[in-house]
Amino acid sequence: MHKFMDPASVALIGTPRRTGAGAFNNAEMMLRYGFKGRIYPVNPAGGEILGLKVYCAVSEIPETVDLAVISVGRDRVPAAFEDCIRAGLKRVIIISQGFADADERGRGLQDQIASRARETGVRVMGPNTLGVVNNYRHLNTAFVEIPFPERFLPVSLIAQTGFIQVASRNLAWRDIGKAIDVGNSCDVDIADALDYLGDDPETQVIVIHMEGLKRGPEFLEAAGRVSRKKPVVVLKTGHSTVGAKAALSHSGSLVGEDHVYDAVFKRAGVLRVRTSAEMRDAIHALSVLGEMKGPRIGVVTVTGAGGIMCADACEELGLTFGEMPAGLREELLKGLPDWVHVSNPIDIWPIGMLGNRYEEAYRLSLTELLKSPGIDGVMAIFFVTSAPLHAELNLDKAFAEARRESRNLKPIATWPYMESTAAIDRFEAIPGLACFDTIEQAVQGLSFCHQTHRMKNRHRPQPRSFAVDEDFARPFITKGKREGLLAGQDALGLLASYGIPAASGIEAKSLAALRAAAKGMKPPFVLKLAGRGFLHKSEWGGIVTGIGNLSELKAAREKIVANVRAKDPNIAIDAFQIQEHLAGKEILLGLKRDPVFGHVMACGQGGIYTEVFRDVSREIVPVDGTTARAMLESLRIWPLLLGTRGEPGVDMDALVEIIERLSFFASQNPDVTELDINPLLVSAAGCWAVDARIIWR
Amino acid sequence: MHKFMDPASVALIGTPRRTGAGAFNNAEMMLRYGFKGRIYPVNPAGGEILGLKVYCAVSEIPETVDLAVISVGRDRVPAAFEDCIRAGLKRVIIISQGFADADERGRGLQDQIASRARETGVRVMGPNTLGVVNNYRHLNTAFVEIPFPERFLPVSLIAQTGFIQVASRNLAWRDIGKAIDVGNSCDVDIADALDYLGDDPETQVIVIHMEGLKRGPEFLEAAGRVSRKKPVVVLKTGHSTVGAKAALSHSGSLVGEDHVYDAVFKRAGVLRVRTSAEMRDAIHALSVLGEMKGPRIGVVTVTGAGGIMCADACEELGLTFGEMPAGLREELLKGLPDWVHVSNPIDIWPIGMLGNRYEEAYRLSLTELLKSPGIDGVMAIFFVTSAPLHAELNLDKAFAEARRESRNLKPIATWPYMESTAAIDRFEAIPGLACFDTIEQAVQGLSFCHQTHRMKNRHRPQPRSFAVDEDFARPFITKGKREGLLAGQDALGLLASYGIPAASGIEAKSLAALRAAAKGMKPPFVLKLAGRGFLHKSEWGGIVTGIGNLSELKAAREKIVANVRAKDPNIAIDAFQIQEHLAGKEILLGLKRDPVFGHVMACGQGGIYTEVFRDVSREIVPVDGTTARAMLESLRIWPLLLGTRGEPGVDMDALVEIIERLSFFASQNPDVTELDINPLLVSAAGCWAVDARIIWR
Repeated sequence: MHKFMDPASVALIGTPRRTGAGAFNNAEMMLRYGFKGRIYPVNPAGGEILGLKVYCAVSEIPETVDLAVISVGRDRVPAAFEDCIRAGLKRVIIISQGFADADERGRGLQDQIASRARETGVRVMGPNTLGVVNNYRHLNTAFVEIPFPERFLPVSLIAQTGFIQVASRNLAWRDIGKAIDVGNSCDVDIADALDYLGDDPETQVIVIHMEGLKRGPEFLEAAGRVSRKKPVVVLKTGHSTVGAKAALSHSGSLVGEDHVYDAVFKRAGVLRVRTSAEMRDAIHALSVLGEMKGPRIGVVTVTGAGGIMCADACEELGLTFGEMPAGLREELLKGLPDWVHVSNPIDIWPIGMLGNRYEEAYRLSLTELLKSPGIDGVMAIFFVTSAPLHAELNLDKAFAEARRESRNLKPIATWPYMESTAAIDRFEAIPGLACFDTIEQAVQGLSFCHQTHRMKNRHRPQPRSFAVDEDFARPFITKGKREGLLAGQDALGLLASYGIPAASGIEAKSLAALRAAAKGMKPPFVLKLAGRGFLHKSEWGGIVTGIGNLSELKAAREKIVANVRAKDPNIAIDAFQIQEHLAGKEILLGLKRDPVFGHVMACGQGGIYTEVFRDVSREIVPVDGTTARAMLESLRIWPLLLGTRGEPGVDMDALVEIIERLSFFASQNPDVTELDINPLLVSAAGCWAVDARIIWR
Repeated sequence: MHKFMDPASVALIGTPRRTGAGAFNNAEMMLRYGFKGRIYPVNPAGGEILGLKVYCAVSEIPETVDLAVISVGRDRVPAAFEDCIRAGLKRVIIISQGFADADERGRGLQDQIASRARETGVRVMGPNTLGVVNNYRHLNTAFVEIPFPERFLPVSLIAQTGFIQVASRNLAWRDIGKAIDVGNSCDVDIADALDYLGDDPETQVIVIHMEGLKRGPEFLEAAGRVSRKKPVVVLKTGHSTVGAKAALSHSGSLVGEDHVYDAVFKRAGVLRVRTSAEMRDAIHALSVLGEMKGPRIGVVTVTGAGGIMCADACEELGLTFGEMPAGLREELLKGLPDWVHVSNPIDIWPIGMLGNRYEEAYRLSLTELLKSPGIDGVMAIFFVTSAPLHAELNLDKAFAEARRESRNLKPIATWPYMESTAAIDRFEAIPGLACFDTIEQAVQGLSFCHQTHRMKNRHRPQPRSFAVDEDFARPFITKGKREGLLAGQDALGLLASYGIPAASGIEAKSLAALRAAAKGMKPPFVLKLAGRGFLHKSEWGGIVTGIGNLSELKAAREKIVANVRAKDPNIAIDAFQIQEHLAGKEILLGLKRDPVFGHVMACGQGGIYTEVFRDVSREIVPVDGTTARAMLESLRIWPLLLGTRGEPGVDMDALVEIIERLSFFASQNPDVTELDINPLLVSAAGCWAVDARIIWR
């Protein structure tokens, strides 16, 4: 990757002969951007443009260039690429559109390029990209003119579109240092770019615009590693149903289920933002403020109403108000009427006005908050005014002094009002201080700083292995692979061999056999339809609970038969399943093999409300005990699992272990595409899988 | 209100003698702001400031001024107010702090002023306010200097803080026309301000910053009336637990439960925004774009990635993509390679570049979308560039022509990139076109325009009256008022007299009496603890279900007694309640008398998950049939009520009527403070209240 971003020489294949207005000539753009390396335009017509010799072919260029940029029509791209291979080049950016982003033929062309890249080891970025920007080297491969920025942040962007790099100035709050548009990612992709930027000393914050991914494990590995060193922020688009379809056709990405991406970003320690405004604020906060080591903030405000807005934002964003530093309250209230109160948020206005010491009170509050071990960051609301009558309200010095006196760099997020851009620069010259557009955005900025701190220091999963009863498991696995599906007692049997407790039960067809089975079990019983034709048993009226004795068993069997017959007079009923009726709360446990990321575990509320409330937590497999417990804690039904109104809680250790065992099952059975335990009945007495199905196809 | 906003003469009581920097002299500020009316400073020291005679007392002013502004220390405010009353003034603004915002004594002073205002008919704004801004009259009563704006919007603000009017320039996107800070609202409040602005021809959009309200019905009436004429936007702060506490101490407001405010704003047709950034965007959208009459938008974009972001935003905000206008696709694709596709969102870049007709394609798309009856508004993403090489990418003319040709004012929200402020003004000179900071904000702008259209034309509730069995009801009501609480069969009996079906059941103590009752009912039965000592029966182990016969009834009674004894050996068990066991889904219906807004109806999922999922819809009473149905439809369990997996839906007509009857009950029993029916069992066979309690205290 390094020489994609810092090439000493670049061949531009397909550069137009025209220059100037309307020509979109990339050689011209590179020159205007100030690139200092060697530029070799390639065009069969030859000649000269902008003082540069135009080569008729790549093979004529007198050196093996570090990078080629191809922008010919899509049908001529494969030949141009072969020219590059023959010329011994190692890195190619393909700007041209019309590949997986367009139609089947385009997808075919792209696959052909990708497989030649793999064979030859030549790395390809694109197609359908604007390429790279590296402001540290005055490099910009875009065919549209972007003015070279006067200053830029140590922030790097990875995107699946060029528009973000074109628009980085108003999208990313300020210009950024580097940008990589991976386009259709036929070879170089987000994971490659992350690998490079993770080790890049010129990059302090990484921001990703992502529509979809193809190499899931590689992304998880790269992002997971890099996010322990520097913040990684992602704006994942295409998360709506309509957006996903559009993304598929835009960059040919497999967009995937959005909640899988949530699980991926959580596991990889990546901060997900929901909108481009949030992206901008995250860049601003993380590049200027850095980390915030805890959730406790102190607020100094010139408006009580603003303090209330801070409180609302804190509660929503997981921050809290820290304690007032010792002695500060007394110091601030000295000499004031006794009706003036002060707490955190510190409303400085009445204190400053009545005591005629606005600036001093503000500076003191800031300093003490920054110094306090009970405060992790500060939110400040203040005036910036050019009104000559209020010059003394300006607080430049107060902030600078507070920072100096505190001798630390705890983040200070601010909302200055009556602002002007010049004032912002003046305040942001103070280290670790950032100005935001609104109060809520400033609080969110602090929240981003806290979240990335937590992600950097997040738990490292330690998945366990378990003993498996291989002999017991083997016939079930054989049957499952053969038939594609295991249901009922078969599925429960396979899970039991992995140590997941299952309700005891038997499948049988005749009443006599069911009765015989029942005699070995403890009533009450449950009778269910069994067999492949009846996956959604309840839709068939195929479940009777609370069967107390053998005559009720007979009636139950007859009732199910009648229910099925009423819906379909001809369908064959192969078997019934009789189980002991267990009591407990219904939990759903599931596995789904995502085509990009592999097995994803789901854990949530089971039963009829599963679809309604979608109270489900997801994690990428493997899941260890700590993560399993965190999954449960994140559920809304968590308080019910803990026990409420005198009811005892469920056997949490057993439940956590079942999740760990299911994760182990997934790792041992990579070809299982789907697995549902629904319900797993959980109670103080233990946990039992009552119904399950496992799918291989 | 009118003369608060447009006084010909103003007395300034407590104006400092000092002027200039640091003096916060409001006479000076008014003069600098360009006020053309007569200003009379009042200060016992007399003399002259800024060329104005200073009067020693209000009584010495040679005319009865339209408005007095008091800014003396809080202890001197009552006397100053009495002076104004004696001088025959009709309107007073009290700037001073230290009232209900401070302590008990301050609250007492405020109450005293409020009651004198009521007695004398003198209207008071404040205390704890910056007063009013009316830029149409160069009026600003604030004691801080605000530069007079060069231009301002026909938008008016009502706030419970002065900071928004001070900061309106960066909070409200641009300066606004009028602002009213109602402060502690001891007399003039948000409802009064709404009444005035609703009829004010200089106000097209009303924005409210609200911490809390005291006069709920008056607000509902005023906002409900005004919102049918012009958009009313509210930023309700103090919605978090911490924020609510802070708001209470800030302006002495009763903040109330946030979901009650949601119900209030829904009923009043008020658009609630969640952050000040949303407030700014709403002001921008509503003042520039106006209404959007449906949810179907058309998108023209220079970036496919941007189209995807639009799709995500639309789905989240309740908008959809309209159909491509007839013929447009064919027109755009003329002469292009067959791999180029086009749909809505229209990705104009490949079309414009390959066809070399970017501007024409953009203009055509805009025009056809605007003209199409299937499109309600347009979202446009485009370049604005000062790069000399790309001058032809600028679309000023294309937008202006499209607007002209379309002959309508459908809203056009845009995200221009590589923007500059100057460019924004150029584009916003086109009628009904607004530029936003990000794609998502632009889409949200359209969503605001659509929401306010729907609110303006919202349903008018037509609550029904029902016949009541007064004779049956009377003893229950007498008992309830006497004891403060009705529970069990008493509560169900009272509801039954209002036509709300209740499970039949009887309360009795002895086993013999329970057996006798059981003989008249259909098994299975439910036995419950009854009596005031056992409000949460399940916590006492006080419910046994599925009782099939009389011997099981005996066992059930013994079990409940044992459960209670295990918890408290001494508590008296007065009675048990025996009911037929009904089947159905559990619904919660409730009433709560909010101290500000009166009865609020709640309807949601009942049973053990009520607290967990909080799947509850709330409406201000009265609730008519249409509203009742909308409440049910807004629940997440709605699909379960409709019926799923072959299960029949519940008797919806019966359920809707029960809600209407409960609303009627509330209107007839205004002194009921709380009522819960939990559960109401609902099924295809009907709906029955199974347990209820009604509270009067």
